[in-house]
Amino acid sequence: MTGKIYFTVGPTELYPEVKSFYKSAFEKKIFSISHRSIEFEEIFKTTVRNLKKLLNIPKDYYVFFYSSATECMERIIQNLVREKSFHYVNGFFAQRFYEISLKYKKSPEKVCSSFGEGTKFENISIPNTTELICIILNETSTGVALNIEDVKKLKQKYPDILIALDLVSAIPYYKIDYKYIDCSFFSVQKGFGMPPGLGVLILNEKCIKKAENLYNDGISIGSYNNFLKWKENYLKNQTTVTPNIPAIFVLGKICETLIRYGNEKIREETNNKAKLIYDYFENHNFIKPFVKNRYFRSKTTISLETNIDSEKIIKELARQGLIISNGYKIFKGKQIRIGNFPMHKTKDVKTLIQKFSLFNSNNKFGII
Amino acid sequence: MTGKIYFTVGPTELYPEVKSFYKSAFEKKIFSISHRSIEFEEIFKTTVRNLKKLLNIPKDYYVFFYSSATECMERIIQNLVREKSFHYVNGFFAQRFYEISLKYKKSPEKVCSSFGEGTKFENISIPNTTELICIILNETSTGVALNIEDVKKLKQKYPDILIALDLVSAIPYYKIDYKYIDCSFFSVQKGFGMPPGLGVLILNEKCIKKAENLYNDGISIGSYNNFLKWKENYLKNQTTVTPNIPAIFVLGKICETLIRYGNEKIREETNNKAKLIYDYFENHNFIKPFVKNRYFRSKTTISLETNIDSEKIIKELARQGLIISNGYKIFKGKQIRIGNFPMHKTKDVKTLIQKFSLFNSNNKFGII
Repeated sequence: MTGKIYFTVGPTELYPEVKSFYKSAFEKKIFSISHRSIEFEEIFKTTVRNLKKLLNIPKDYYVFFYSSATECMERIIQNLVREKSFHYVNGFFAQRFYEISLKYKKSPEKVCSSFGEGTKFENISIPNTTELICIILNETSTGVALNIEDVKKLKQKYPDILIALDLVSAIPYYKIDYKYIDCSFFSVQKGFGMPPGLGVLILNEKCIKKAENLYNDGISIGSYNNFLKWKENYLKNQTTVTPNIPAIFVLGKICETLIRYGNEKIREETNNKAKLIYDYFENHNFIKPFVKNRYFRSKTTISLETNIDSEKIIKELARQGLIISNGYKIFKGKQIRIGNFPMHKTKDVKTLIQKFSLFNSNNKFGII
Repeated sequence: MTGKIYFTVGPTELYPEVKSFYKSAFEKKIFSISHRSIEFEEIFKTTVRNLKKLLNIPKDYYVFFYSSATECMERIIQNLVREKSFHYVNGFFAQRFYEISLKYKKSPEKVCSSFGEGTKFENISIPNTTELICIILNETSTGVALNIEDVKKLKQKYPDILIALDLVSAIPYYKIDYKYIDCSFFSVQKGFGMPPGLGVLILNEKCIKKAENLYNDGISIGSYNNFLKWKENYLKNQTTVTPNIPAIFVLGKICETLIRYGNEKIREETNNKAKLIYDYFENHNFIKPFVKNRYFRSKTTISLETNIDSEKIIKELARQGLIISNGYKIFKGKQIRIGNFPMHKTKDVKTLIQKFSLFNSNNKFGII
């Protein structure tokens, strides 16, 4: 066994139970069953039921399984946009969503904030031709989290425009009132502490209706994985193609584990660990929170800017068995990012923080 | 441990080694590593190298990882077809490929054979506007396998038309001369004996050039998973998005195992087991090979028609721990299908066959 702990922003440390879920699946030969079998339908049903229970998703919402959050973005654009998607862009993942719309020859619009900043949407007006508003709740690339209440107010202001909310790296921590959100999605290698390879899309009937409209008007909404094909299969507790059965099975088990553990306990612990981290770095000499406005600081993916070459910090910590993330793209070398997900234990967070005193008290790692 | 053996056509029995590959991955925390890390690049390189060695794929071919064979079909249509794909349809998977082209608003054409029949392509003429010929080598839905030499001749007759070959459930058994095939694909839950969740696309530079042409002409070739984005990432030993890391890792290990075992040995064993199965059912009273022409009989997915309700056969065998597949779609209840992949042992095939004497000697299962 490696003694490493992954404090990365995802893929990250697995829930300790994941290994035993795989073990039992191998014993029961679950990975050999047909995705059209009754056994698989039972797994599908259980996973959807547990996920809805954990996240408090309305019963009449659909849950579609894709291969990544990026595939979710693509299917959303294909199925919900005739021409005009509107994107709030304050990081690389929001930018990706915007570009997917462009690549499908739609005419997206965007409003941008500087990376590291957020918005309460008060001064953002949405063009009235907009069909879909696309928002990233927790920008993993910058460590900015928007406030879900602000997103809710925006939806209340524009009740007739569909809203798509990226929840990657946000849930299960952030409490979402799904009835205000037409569609949302996440991937399992962040707060769900699983190996990567599954994206989950949660959507309401309005999204299906929109896809139907586009389809009836002769617009391509994709093929085997479009919303209409998926709805048809969802109602049979089946997927559209042979899916990542291990991931669907394990997700159901993880949700069960988290339900038992308790949502409120997860939130309280995440808050406490985030406070430990932010408080510490407020007073660090060379490493500081990147997001200045506390209101927009992510509790789950914490970005820190540093004038020590971040690669050196990462290497030194790795030598001690603690793995953290580098800054994203243009922030590489200038930032570090720490994942603070439910599987990260308080005592390990404390250990991690202590290690940073090494970079506080001297400059042998080279201030740049 | 369940005592079941899966003789299904995929998902099917896993290679016995798969479990230990997962175990070692858990120990090394491979499922927590970043898909942008050097560790992942090493895994990517190893898997591609082993796959190319096992299948004898030319060095300059690309290997892209998608989430399923159906996604491969979709990406092929998006990236290689401006208007005209041509489909040889003799089963449901070929029909799916055709429909994906339709769904993307292309103008595909098709030539059909009755299900259960094949072609040597001698009398099939391809319209000269065709950009891409789409063929399923081994139709899992019917148990018809085309002859790879006939496909090669077709390509020689139309050297300037791209060819896409579905190798799902065909390889590693069928020996492919990849230099005649512009692109081909498979999924891992068949002959590679893995849990489902990964599609693998093998393609040459001509395919990249075609995607470039379409892109330059303003045609949508998809977004994050298009061939140009993939090529860029492939050259860095990376994927386009956070992929199914477990599957990419395990595929590399399986290829290594198969290389050690030896291709020719796999082929010889598969031939022998297929002969056992076909010979037996030639002489069965109520269950007969569905494909009448021996030339087109699949060695890996064997379809049998029966005038006993096939559900009853399947249930009775399952009771004895032997799992086989039902007929596909319209053949449900009327056919059974047996997977004959490298992980299926000769002694188990013999056991399976013996069980069928039960349905030969009396009609307590109800002749229909």
